[in-house]
Amino acid sequence: MDREIGFIGLGSMGLPMVLNLLKSNLKVKVYNRTPEKARDAVAAGAQQMDRAADVATVGGIVITMVSNDKALEEVVFEKDGIGKKLGVGGIHLSMSTVSPKTSRKLASYHEQQGSYYVASPVFGRPEAASAQKLFLLSSGHRDAKERVKPLQNALGQQVFDISEEPGGANVIKLGGNFMIMAAMEAMAESFNLAEKNGIDRQLAAEVYASTLFNCTVYQGYGQMIAKKSFEPAGFQLSLGFKDCNLVLDEANSTKTPMPLASLLHDRLLASIAKGRETHDWSALARVASEEAGLE
Amino acid sequence: MDREIGFIGLGSMGLPMVLNLLKSNLKVKVYNRTPEKARDAVAAGAQQMDRAADVATVGGIVITMVSNDKALEEVVFEKDGIGKKLGVGGIHLSMSTVSPKTSRKLASYHEQQGSYYVASPVFGRPEAASAQKLFLLSSGHRDAKERVKPLQNALGQQVFDISEEPGGANVIKLGGNFMIMAAMEAMAESFNLAEKNGIDRQLAAEVYASTLFNCTVYQGYGQMIAKKSFEPAGFQLSLGFKDCNLVLDEANSTKTPMPLASLLHDRLLASIAKGRETHDWSALARVASEEAGLE
Amino acid sequence: MDREIGFIGLGSMGLPMVLNLLKSNLKVKVYNRTPEKARDAVAAGAQQMDRAADVATVGGIVITMVSNDKALEEVVFEKDGIGKKLGVGGIHLSMSTVSPKTSRKLASYHEQQGSYYVASPVFGRPEAASAQKLFLLSSGHRDAKERVKPLQNALGQQVFDISEEPGGANVIKLGGNFMIMAAMEAMAESFNLAEKNGIDRQLAAEVYASTLFNCTVYQGYGQMIAKKSFEPAGFQLSLGFKDCNLVLDEANSTKTPMPLASLLHDRLLASIAKGRETHDWSALARVASEEAGLE
Amino acid sequence: MDREIGFIGLGSMGLPMVLNLLKSNLKVKVYNRTPEKARDAVAAGAQQMDRAADVATVGGIVITMVSNDKALEEVVFEKDGIGKKLGVGGIHLSMSTVSPKTSRKLASYHEQQGSYYVASPVFGRPEAASAQKLFLLSSGHRDAKERVKPLQNALGQQVFDISEEPGGANVIKLGGNFMIMAAMEAMAESFNLAEKNGIDRQLAAEVYASTLFNCTVYQGYGQMIAKKSFEPAGFQLSLGFKDCNLVLDEANSTKTPMPLASLLHDRLLASIAKGRETHDWSALARVASEEAGLE
Repeated sequence: MDREIGFIGLGSMGLPMVLNLLKSNLKVKVYNRTPEKARDAVAAGAQQMDRAADVATVGGIVITMVSNDKALEEVVFEKDGIGKKLGVGGIHLSMSTVSPKTSRKLASYHEQQGSYYVASPVFGRPEAASAQKLFLLSSGHRDAKERVKPLQNALGQQVFDISEEPGGANVIKLGGNFMIMAAMEAMAESFNLAEKNGIDRQLAAEVYASTLFNCTVYQGYGQMIAKKSFEPAGFQLSLGFKDCNLVLDEANSTKTPMPLASLLHDRLLASIAKGRETHDWSALARVASEEAGLE
Repeated sequence: MDREIGFIGLGSMGLPMVLNLLKSNLKVKVYNRTPEKARDAVAAGAQQMDRAADVATVGGIVITMVSNDKALEEVVFEKDGIGKKLGVGGIHLSMSTVSPKTSRKLASYHEQQGSYYVASPVFGRPEAASAQKLFLLSSGHRDAKERVKPLQNALGQQVFDISEEPGGANVIKLGGNFMIMAAMEAMAESFNLAEKNGIDRQLAAEVYASTLFNCTVYQGYGQMIAKKSFEPAGFQLSLGFKDCNLVLDEANSTKTPMPLASLLHDRLLASIAKGRETHDWSALARVASEEAGLE
Repeated sequence: MDREIGFIGLGSMGLPMVLNLLKSNLKVKVYNRTPEKARDAVAAGAQQMDRAADVATVGGIVITMVSNDKALEEVVFEKDGIGKKLGVGGIHLSMSTVSPKTSRKLASYHEQQGSYYVASPVFGRPEAASAQKLFLLSSGHRDAKERVKPLQNALGQQVFDISEEPGGANVIKLGGNFMIMAAMEAMAESFNLAEKNGIDRQLAAEVYASTLFNCTVYQGYGQMIAKKSFEPAGFQLSLGFKDCNLVLDEANSTKTPMPLASLLHDRLLASIAKGRETHDWSALARVASEEAGLE
Repeated sequence: MDREIGFIGLGSMGLPMVLNLLKSNLKVKVYNRTPEKARDAVAAGAQQMDRAADVATVGGIVITMVSNDKALEEVVFEKDGIGKKLGVGGIHLSMSTVSPKTSRKLASYHEQQGSYYVASPVFGRPEAASAQKLFLLSSGHRDAKERVKPLQNALGQQVFDISEEPGGANVIKLGGNFMIMAAMEAMAESFNLAEKNGIDRQLAAEVYASTLFNCTVYQGYGQMIAKKSFEPAGFQLSLGFKDCNLVLDEANSTKTPMPLASLLHDRLLASIAKGRETHDWSALARVASEEAGLE
């Protein structure tokens, strides 16, 4: 297991992950665009660097956990980025939720440099990150996936090896977000039917979440949709919309009709037209309620 | 707790339920349209009667677990039915999956006779029935619901009190079946996207069912949809279509637009047009695969 | 050509049709549930009768133009209805917009009496009826269709022989109404896209209605949808919803998935949930506008 | 009226347009990427040039009619393109079907050069172009639109002034193509319902196209959809899919939910997944037929 690594991105997900790596007695060099956000990591023993490139060592491993495709490309391609620095045998372990296309592009670039790209998006919220309960997906070159596995295990409860094709893990991550939104719409319509029949929405949510659907997605979002309480956002609707568009892009390029994804797209777009981009993504449920005359 | 009860309907669900009642030392009179099907119940101690009415005693309780709305109405309204026999204070505990409308109609009829109707559809398959692991929903008159509760507890792991309005439990049951079908369509589209990206469908199913969606619906149906293996049917597609139409009827009469239910309706109708009414209802997933050119 | 006929239903469509028959020098006996509505027809020479049965003569022809399936069944089946009276060789020429099922039921009944049923719904508004510009569809027994043709010609500009199966003409009529609603939704979405791009909605309507879509449906409804002006109703939204449900019923029973009809159903149901059942059916366009944040 | 103009793009639409300009006694310099395609234009009096830039004169007018956004950008931006050549006061009259975004980008570029961009996509097939029966849309700077009007009149029967915003005409053009596809899907579903009821599809098509929908779109495509005859393509399905995606892009960027466009998108994508990209775009109708078990 590598004992020294670089880590870029100290947001609500990245910070608890770094803390867990430090607990595992790793030496971690960190970089964050807004330097102030590195404070807690430094206090816990991380070494803060001024430039992205500085967290990388030739042949080493750098984990990235940034906010979107653009931010990810920047920390690789910009002048002080990790792209040229990782060198032969280095590994870019990319945990952000980005498009399969971005992963393919970066994988191809790293290959030209003699380094590796492993896509490793995660399922789990910040609390899961803290508790080392994340699920990690993994796609990329076999050897590189093998080498980063101990690091992934230090960050979560299980690692799924998806494919050698670098975009595979991102496809599964996007597919998961799509399935979450589908569950939300199903709950929205079902709870409305209950309400229209004089049944308490929260009771309906509770019944489903403790019988057929006793899993986190239905439990957590079920309560929000039942209570019609969508602020503050755990995950912003605008980000859900971005992911839904990525799903539809991938559907287009692989010739996979997804009418349920189209329906969700239209729900999210209506939500945005109504000014709800900063609400939680479960607020997509409000469109169904409005159509039913319930708001 | 009532110690003697009547039970009508000894199919794959009814039989294990009767066996559990006998184990709880109740005296059970049973009736089944096809008398031969009563054999196992009789062997376990039930007393077989020749006519539906014979399992009822004035002021007693009769449980019904029959195949559809029509069969249910028959055992109540026909000449030798339980309708007139239950008398003042009797309770019809109706566990079949029927429409809210049928429950409302029967409740109103029983009220005229001085008896009660409690709708109590269940979540769970025959194995769950055997293991006393059913979940039971309950709607109807407060006193009647209270009186049948010990019986319900003898049959399952939890009882949910939905409403006094008699159709409420059926609305929740239908809403649950709708949500199951929505999950199936979401998996169908998501697994297709994975397959088109070169990812093993079963791996995709396994990832989702052990992370975000670690609950029975996704685990069981996920495997079927991943393997595209839809026979023999656990629950026939034609029955899913019937339930979907009941959902849309209820949506119409309560003015609740449900576009996801409409989408599922169209998937199921296409499946039937293609001759798949006897396949498992998860076979609705095949339409998405065909549209993607994957079959 | 028959010179004496009966006519039931003197609403906004029926009255101008009777006037045209009188102009063709026919002797017309009329009946209307609300007798006062017969005044103009009587003033023009029609003979008013007290009961539906009285407008029928054995072996003669009765035209019905009533408001819905129920009203149609009543004038046939009720005690003083035309059902028993028409006798051997009589023809019931049914011009109301009813379901194929109702036509099949009535055709079967009339056949038992030795009389005929010809379904003959029309395309056209009251003004077209006045101007003898209706289009008439025709389905039923060959001989009966032949015999009523001169009467149909006296009422419109063209007759289309659809099928011997009695419900055929109703299927085509419903299909037409479905296609009108589809055109409305297409215009609604297209005009919204124009408006969001700063283009005048009425200009957009005018461009389409004078180029690609220079036909009545787009011209008339295009202006209403562009101006968002939906009252008073030419044809009430609740009637459009009824027809849409008839389309979906027929789709169900013939195994014909119609996702566009499902979409329209959900638009209309949302409109009704929002209290617009008495607006013009083109008001279904408002749902798209609301989703776009344009209302 | 300008008497000398440049013309780029001599495909099935461009050639008849050039011939009409020559008939109006204009002097026309032409350029086509594949030089051989200029033969007929030259035979009719056009002067063929070797480079795009050569058809432009400073302050003059150049009409472009090329196959897509990329081809259009090339003839403007490439080294020998018209971009720098048109100079102050020149006008680029752009008749290709391209995205509003491309028009906005080119308009902005031309403005920097002191020249003008007028978007002027057309409605009409090659036969309409030959017969001077095109309809032309026009968006861009007021003065430039005024100056090109005589040229537009020499090419078609009517010009619609859409907006000063340069993308407006493209929005209307895309909206029209969307509405055509919506009409196709409506016909597909309606004809299937007729067929399932034993009614001849061509009869159904004829009834609608000579009554409610007596306009070209329903007449022409109605016959194709009724006969299920989709080859050879008048307009390829892959181009319809491209336009549908442009509509959805524009819908996204202007926050305009268009569920009917989403439905069409999914129909077209399924058609492509089944290998029908070179069929006529009306072949989208086959998906509905397949779902109904009619193929």
